[in-house]
Amino acid sequence: MPPGQTESPVPTIAGDRLWDDVVATARFGGTAGGGITRLALSEEDRQVRDWFAARTRDLGCELSIDAIGNMLALFPGHDATLPPIAMGSHLDTQPLGGRFDGILGVLAGLEVLRALKEAGCLLQRPLAVVNWTNEEGARFSPAMFGSSVHAEALSVDAALGIRDRDGTTVGDALEAIGYRGAEAPGARRFAAYLELHIEQGPLLEAEHRDIGIVTGVQGLRWFDIEIEGLEAHAGSTPMGRRRDALVVAAELVLAARDIARRHAPGVITAGHCVVSPNSRNVVPGRVRLEIDMRHPESAGLEAMEAELAAAVRVGNDVGTTSMRRIWAKAPVAFDPRCVAAIGRSAAACGLSAVEIASGAGHDAANLAALAPTGMIFIPSRDGLSHNENEYSTPEQCARGTQVLLETVIQIDRLLSS
Amino acid sequence: MPPGQTESPVPTIAGDRLWDDVVATARFGGTAGGGITRLALSEEDRQVRDWFAARTRDLGCELSIDAIGNMLALFPGHDATLPPIAMGSHLDTQPLGGRFDGILGVLAGLEVLRALKEAGCLLQRPLAVVNWTNEEGARFSPAMFGSSVHAEALSVDAALGIRDRDGTTVGDALEAIGYRGAEAPGARRFAAYLELHIEQGPLLEAEHRDIGIVTGVQGLRWFDIEIEGLEAHAGSTPMGRRRDALVVAAELVLAARDIARRHAPGVITAGHCVVSPNSRNVVPGRVRLEIDMRHPESAGLEAMEAELAAAVRVGNDVGTTSMRRIWAKAPVAFDPRCVAAIGRSAAACGLSAVEIASGAGHDAANLAALAPTGMIFIPSRDGLSHNENEYSTPEQCARGTQVLLETVIQIDRLLSS
Repeated sequence: MPPGQTESPVPTIAGDRLWDDVVATARFGGTAGGGITRLALSEEDRQVRDWFAARTRDLGCELSIDAIGNMLALFPGHDATLPPIAMGSHLDTQPLGGRFDGILGVLAGLEVLRALKEAGCLLQRPLAVVNWTNEEGARFSPAMFGSSVHAEALSVDAALGIRDRDGTTVGDALEAIGYRGAEAPGARRFAAYLELHIEQGPLLEAEHRDIGIVTGVQGLRWFDIEIEGLEAHAGSTPMGRRRDALVVAAELVLAARDIARRHAPGVITAGHCVVSPNSRNVVPGRVRLEIDMRHPESAGLEAMEAELAAAVRVGNDVGTTSMRRIWAKAPVAFDPRCVAAIGRSAAACGLSAVEIASGAGHDAANLAALAPTGMIFIPSRDGLSHNENEYSTPEQCARGTQVLLETVIQIDRLLSS
Repeated sequence: MPPGQTESPVPTIAGDRLWDDVVATARFGGTAGGGITRLALSEEDRQVRDWFAARTRDLGCELSIDAIGNMLALFPGHDATLPPIAMGSHLDTQPLGGRFDGILGVLAGLEVLRALKEAGCLLQRPLAVVNWTNEEGARFSPAMFGSSVHAEALSVDAALGIRDRDGTTVGDALEAIGYRGAEAPGARRFAAYLELHIEQGPLLEAEHRDIGIVTGVQGLRWFDIEIEGLEAHAGSTPMGRRRDALVVAAELVLAARDIARRHAPGVITAGHCVVSPNSRNVVPGRVRLEIDMRHPESAGLEAMEAELAAAVRVGNDVGTTSMRRIWAKAPVAFDPRCVAAIGRSAAACGLSAVEIASGAGHDAANLAALAPTGMIFIPSRDGLSHNENEYSTPEQCARGTQVLLETVIQIDRLLSS
C-alpha cells in the first residue's frame, strides 16, 4: 500500500441526491411522455452540459473540453502525476428516449466524487468523470462518436465535417453551443475506465439480479439483403408461376431467426423490410431487408454469417438475392481485472450479480482499446430502452452507483499494489 | 333463321387497321417508356374519347353518353327494336400502364363494326361498342366504376361525388372534359355483352394457346392483418424473449402461400407489408399486412379464409394479431351459351383455345348480372400488365378480334333461333 493511503471504510453514496440529479437532468429536453428528446449538440444538450459543468465546478473539479466536445471533469488524487481512473457515459438521448440510458453513468460518476469528497477520502489516483459527445448517433452518425474520436477510430477532421439532416456540421453545432474545446481528443490517458449503464435488456430483471458484471460487448455485423423477384398481377398469376420477393424475404426472416437460435447467445434481427411496389394486389417484385447480427465471439459471428449466406443462396431459386456486409465490429472483451473487481465489489455490497455480455454498443467498447475497462449494468424495467418508458428504480440506480464507487477504490488499490 | 338473315361467310377483320388504331390511341398519354399514362377523365382521356367518338361517327354510329360518362356507339341491325349485342372495355389506363389493357377491347369492337360494314353484312340485332368510364380506379376509386354504375352496383350520385387525391369530384372532372352525358346509366339493355381483353397473366403464352375462353371471374376477398409484437433492442434482447412482429408476418406470408397451393387454382398474395419502426437494430414492434385472395368458387374462398384465420390465431402466441375482411366480391360465372359460342368461334377460326378463369376483375363481371356475357382473352407477353412493357403481337390482337366478330355473329344467330 502506497504512503498516504489507508484501508478506510468505503463511503456510502447518497441515493436521494443521485435521484434528484436524474430528475433535474430530465428537464432538459423532457417530453410530455416522461422521456427525453436531447439530440447531440442541440440546445437541450447545451443546457445539460452547462448543468454538468456547474456541478463539477461545485465539486472543485477542473473541467476540460476537447475538440469534439467530450467533457472531462478531473477530481484530485494523492498523486496528481498519475493518469486518472475515469468514469463516464453520455448525456445525449435518442428522440423520445429515456431518462437513464447514458445519463445514469455520468450522474453516478458525479455522485461517486461527491461521496468521496464528503467522506474526505482521497484515492491514490485522480478521478475523472467524462461526458462523451453524441453516443447515440441519432443526429450525427455514427454512434459512439466522441469516444471513437478519443480512441482514434474516427479522425477529428472527419468527425467535425459530418452533417445532420439539415446540413449542419458537427463543427458548426459545437461552435453554436460553445462546446468546441481546445484539448486534442485522446491526449489524456486513463489508468482505467468504468461505465455504469442500464442493461437495456430483460435478463437482470428476469433473473432477479441487482448487478450485471459485463464481460464484454458483442461483436456486430450489419447486412443489406436485396431480393429481386418479378412484379405480377395478384389475380392472374398462378402460385406456381410467381417469383414473389416477399415470400423469399419471409423465408430469410425465419432462417435468420433459426440460425440465431442455433448459435445462442447470438442474436439476429431483421428490423427493416421495405416491399416494392407494396400494393395489395401486386405480387411483390422487390424487397430490401436490413439485418443486424451480434455474438460475443468472432467464431459465432463467422458461423452465423456463413449460414445466412447459404440461406440467401437458396433464395436465388426464386429471384436474384444478394447480401452485402456493410459494417462489422469485432467483439470486445473487457479487462479481466476490471471484471473481477466489479464482481468482488458487488459481493462486498451484498448484492446479487451475474456475468453478462452487453448486446448494445457502448463508449466503453472504444475505451477498452486504450485502458483496462469494465462496465456495470443495472436492471431495466421490461428490458425497455430508447423509449420514454425506460425505467430503473432509485434503489437500482443507487446500488449500481455504490458498486461503481467500490470498484473505483478496488481498481485504485489494485493498480497501486 | 329469321327473315332477312343469310348464312353468308363471316367477314375478315383487318389486322393492320386494328394495329394502326393501337398505335394511334397510344399517343394520348403516351410515355417515354412506350406505355400510356391516361387516368380516367383526364385531358388525355378526353383526347382518346374524342378520337373514339370521331371514329364511331365515321362508321355512321349513333353515339350516346350517360351521366357517368360511359360512351356507347350504336351500329344498326335489321331490327332496330331489338336490344343490341354490346362489345366493349375501357380506354383509361393505370399510371405507366400499357397500350392494350382495356383499349384492345374497345378497338376490337370498332374493327368488328368496320369489317361488317365493309362486307355489307347486317346482323339481326343492332351492335354497340362501349367505352366504360374509369375501369382502372387509379384516379377515382373503386375500379370498374362506370360499369358498376351501369349495373346499379354503385349509385350515380355517390359516383359523381367521389374525389381524386386533389379533391376534384368525378362530376366536375366529367364536366371539365365535356363527357357528362344526359342518358341515365343502365337505361339501355343489352342482348349480350362480349369483351375481348389481354390475359394479364402467363397461362396462354406458357401453353401456346391463341385464345382463352373465359369461364368467369374469380371471387375476391381482401384482408387487413395487424400484428402487434414488442419493440425491443436488437442487441440486448435474447431470441427467446422477443415478440417480433416481422417474424409473425413472415410465418403468415408463408402460410398464405401454402394455403393457396393447397387450394389451386386459388391464389393468395401478401402484396403490402409495412414494418414499424422499421429500423435495422430494433426488433419490429408492429407489422401491417394487406392480403388479396382469389378463387373461382365460393367454397374455395371460404376454405382459404378459414385456414388463413387459423394461421393468424397461431400468430397470437407471439403478439396480438388481428385479421379483418375489408372487401369481398363473389365469383362470377359467365353465360354458358357465350362460353360455348366463344369456343366454337375459336375452332371455326382454326385457333387453339383453352378455358380459363379470369384472375383480374373486368367490366364484364358487372355486365354478367344484366345480360348473357362472355370474355375472350389473348396472350400477354411474359404475363405482364399494368406495365409499360405490356405487349401482345399484332397477330394475337387480330386473332382475338376475329374470334370476337365470329362470336357476335354466333350469338346473334343463337338469340334469333
